[in-house]
Formats: sequence, structure tokens, C-alpha cells
Amino acid sequence: MQRLATVIRIKPEKIEEYKRLHADAWPGVLRALQRANVRNYSIYLRDNTLFGYMEYTGEDFEADMARVAEDEETQRWWQLTDPCQLPVDSANPGEWWARMEEVFHMD
Amino acid sequence: MQRLATVIRIKPEKIEEYKRLHADAWPGVLRALQRANVRNYSIYLRDNTLFGYMEYTGEDFEADMARVAEDEETQRWWQLTDPCQLPVDSANPGEWWARMEEVFHMD
Repeated sequence: MQRLATVIRIKPEKIEEYKRLHADAWPGVLRALQRANVRNYSIYLRDNTLFGYMEYTGEDFEADMARVAEDEETQRWWQLTDPCQLPVDSANPGEWWARMEEVFHMD
Repeated sequence: MQRLATVIRIKPEKIEEYKRLHADAWPGVLRALQRANVRNYSIYLRDNTLFGYMEYTGEDFEADMARVAEDEETQRWWQLTDPCQLPVDSANPGEWWARMEEVFHMD
């Protein structure tokens, strides 16, 4: 199992919409994530910043994420959620959620 | 089990020291956290920000954290780690790591 944390900004005027969407996330979106071997996935908010934490149980994260990106319901979901978000200033070109570095872990 | 996420800033000139400390955290500090019912605790870094994720399996988080704060080895550890950190601007007076709001979770 691999732990992954990511960060992105949220537009202040979109916070309520983002929270409403995620309080009742679409079953098809969740199924696509489950199929992609994502587990124990949480998103946290403070100060117009979103942190994502997930556990990945598969063997090829890039391939699994590519399958998620091909899912039509997920694409429709992202049409709603992407306008809520802005990459952090340090994100690479084309990077959306930006990977964080794990500096500590205790089981 | 309760999930908790917290955020704090790190002083840029202290990043290497903080990472070095946490790459080899003191066994007594880890034992105090385990005794306090903390599990699956990770700290992530990006852009001078630290994001903490933990799972709490006890019944009284405040009381367990108070016990951690009484642990002498933990107090010595914090004498090294506290000077590395700065609370976020939105932290309450006296708040160190600031709690984040969970806006999404999928098991």
C-alpha cells in the first residue's frame, strides 16, 4: 500500500459548491476510484487550500489514474469540480493536484 | 476511528533539520503517540507547509493529547521541532497545528 498526499487551492467563492458536491459524491465517481485501487481517500479544507490523502493498493498508479480519467461520469464530475480549483503556484505545467513529500510516517 | 488532519507552516531554513529529525523520530516520542491511540500518522511537506494526517482510535482525544504533552521525551522533542514551525495565520491564539475540515471521505 502506498500513501499519497496532494494539495490544490480552492476559489473562495466556490467553497460551498465544492463542499456540497463532495458531501454527496456521485456513486459512479466513487466506483471509478475504487476500481483504480484507491482506498481511504479524504479531502480536507482550510484557508482556501485543499489537502488530499489517499491510500493506493494497486501496482501501477499512473495507469490506474489514466483509467479514472477515461471514465465518462468522472469527466462530467470534473466539469463541476475543476472550476472550483486552482493549482498551487509551485505546480508543474499541466499538474492539477500537486504531490506532497512524505516527511514522517508512523503505523 | 476518527480521522484528523492538521496544517502548520515550516520555516524554510528549518526544512532540512525538520526532515532529518522526522526521518529518525525518537522511539519514546512514537511510543507516547501509540499510547495516546494515534495510528497511521503521516506528515507531508510542500511549499513551506506541513500537512498532518492521523487516525485516532481512542475515546477522548483531548485527554490523550494532554498525556502526550506530559511525556518528558516528547517535551524534549518539541524543543527541537517547535522552532521549525509557525502556526498558520488563521490559527486560534495558542493553537499550533490547526485543524482542517474534512469535506470528503471514501473508505
